[in-house]
Amino acid sequence: MPPAANRQVVLKSRPAGIPQAENFELIEAPLPALADGQVLVHNLYVTAEPAMRGWVSAVANYSEPVPIGGVMRSPAVGRVAESRHPDYEPGELVTGMFGWQAYAAVDAKTITRKVPADGPPISTALGVLGLNGLTAYFALLEVGQPKKGETVVVSTAAGAVGSCVGQIAKLKGCRSVGITGGAEKVRLCREEFGYDAAIDYKAGQLDAALAQACPEGLDVYFDNTAGPISDAVMQHLRPGARIVICGTASISSWDPWPAGPRIERHLLVKRARMQGFLIFDYAPRFPEALAALTEWVRAGKIRYREDILEGLEQAPGSIAGLYRGENLGKRIIRVAPAGTQGRNFS
Amino acid sequence: MPPAANRQVVLKSRPAGIPQAENFELIEAPLPALADGQVLVHNLYVTAEPAMRGWVSAVANYSEPVPIGGVMRSPAVGRVAESRHPDYEPGELVTGMFGWQAYAAVDAKTITRKVPADGPPISTALGVLGLNGLTAYFALLEVGQPKKGETVVVSTAAGAVGSCVGQIAKLKGCRSVGITGGAEKVRLCREEFGYDAAIDYKAGQLDAALAQACPEGLDVYFDNTAGPISDAVMQHLRPGARIVICGTASISSWDPWPAGPRIERHLLVKRARMQGFLIFDYAPRFPEALAALTEWVRAGKIRYREDILEGLEQAPGSIAGLYRGENLGKRIIRVAPAGTQGRNFS
Repeated sequence: MPPAANRQVVLKSRPAGIPQAENFELIEAPLPALADGQVLVHNLYVTAEPAMRGWVSAVANYSEPVPIGGVMRSPAVGRVAESRHPDYEPGELVTGMFGWQAYAAVDAKTITRKVPADGPPISTALGVLGLNGLTAYFALLEVGQPKKGETVVVSTAAGAVGSCVGQIAKLKGCRSVGITGGAEKVRLCREEFGYDAAIDYKAGQLDAALAQACPEGLDVYFDNTAGPISDAVMQHLRPGARIVICGTASISSWDPWPAGPRIERHLLVKRARMQGFLIFDYAPRFPEALAALTEWVRAGKIRYREDILEGLEQAPGSIAGLYRGENLGKRIIRVAPAGTQGRNFS
Repeated sequence: MPPAANRQVVLKSRPAGIPQAENFELIEAPLPALADGQVLVHNLYVTAEPAMRGWVSAVANYSEPVPIGGVMRSPAVGRVAESRHPDYEPGELVTGMFGWQAYAAVDAKTITRKVPADGPPISTALGVLGLNGLTAYFALLEVGQPKKGETVVVSTAAGAVGSCVGQIAKLKGCRSVGITGGAEKVRLCREEFGYDAAIDYKAGQLDAALAQACPEGLDVYFDNTAGPISDAVMQHLRPGARIVICGTASISSWDPWPAGPRIERHLLVKRARMQGFLIFDYAPRFPEALAALTEWVRAGKIRYREDILEGLEQAPGSIAGLYRGENLGKRIIRVAPAGTQGRNFS
């Protein structure tokens, strides 16, 4: 039986730039009442995402901003505690945007999918077998359109999306070059994620390092950063290059709107293409991608790393930490703190 | 019979930015000797092109820079004066990159096509039935991919490429919005080129004018300018918008490289695509486009304007004039000055 009270992290104030711990508040709230067609989910894991910066911003975006006082939006995986919908039964594992809270009463149609109990660890439903893996899959294959023998450059190469992009590029017969920050992440890129070359942008001389890693230029740039890293990469495009705009992690604020070197001439001279990507546009095709990704993960062809924080009280500061680059792997928050409940709690 | 001497405009010095009259020199030279497989073309018309700025620049580009002392590269249409190639006979009209000169000895394979004597005026082979029309056709239809009912915004809307883009957009069932400079060009856009709306960017308040002309945003932006005009247009993209980078007329120099508002966020939030275009990539498909364009011109469905300068001595200053926006219509240079030879000279 669920407890009488819920625990939730709500948005206390709208951040200027990157969300900080003080923009959120951990509160107790009554357990939600369940309406017909709803399911009560006991969240096991939620996440910290770079995109959350956009979700709490009042600036026009692809989704409505989280309201002040509202539960922070987040992907989650949890176990059905109660169900008033015929498709779901208590004990089943489900994933969806259930928010930073211990319990969520959700309309069944907001559940993304059931997570098999006999598959890879359930936390992967929030990373490599969740929006990160799906993003890597569709953004690289559909927008980047890599061809065998081409060179694919990935920024935030050791991150949850980037590491998957680099490995899918290799599976498709491409040369993969990762850009990441710090020696430990460079090592991860080379040893765990199979990049043919990995560049530490914090070491400086990015332009020279790119010239060395991509002597004939690059065909696909999978961009999670924008900013100075992208400015350097744009100098090395090959004719017909494709640039996937997946994130803008290096831009701390869009108010005031930042300036950078104009890109029109690069695109013109190289007949290159730059295109923005949003995973939710591909929702109807998630099953095909999940099937491929699950197979690759099971076969050890795609490796992943997780950085698990213990307890919902870690959530408020978890986004800022991402932007400081302090995590090695997908940042996931275990909702119940370690020690209070075991692996098979619920 | 051709005269004993040739007249040529050669590149005297490499311009910093926009080529000026003093960067060129009009010289007399011996008539070239004709080798086997070559054709002697008596040029009737050559052109001034915004792209010529790139052709004389030493900065890396899609083509080799014109060498100092070399004849200025230019599209031309002329009459075959002598032929040592079986496919060409004296008197036939041909078009190709024959340069700013009265006579050109060219390899037959460099001839783009024969121009029919019974078609539209032969000068159209340099504009609406030349690279400008071909650029409008392929860049709009292949890169912009306009769909019926969509809104297409065109910069340099009254220009040789832009005016054709606006009219093809209408033929494809789109709403066309032109951006141009000055009241006279706005009138041309509305009355001659059939734009649904035309905006004078020199009148200021471009953003408000775009909001009024495109209350629901725009689906295709055909960009010939880059710079502040594009920066304003980017604020009005609809989801899934396509931006065709065809030229960068408003950027006077790329050395030092200019900065502008970063576009990554626009592309990301709107899942928009920005792609550079170079007409020469479509050479194998020129015949299909010429057939369509010729039919549209004959039927009066595509109208065009020409701005004809008299005499090769006008060529050196003709590019700078383009960038000052002084021409109304495609800028063409009649090689023999008016009065010295009639319409059917050669």
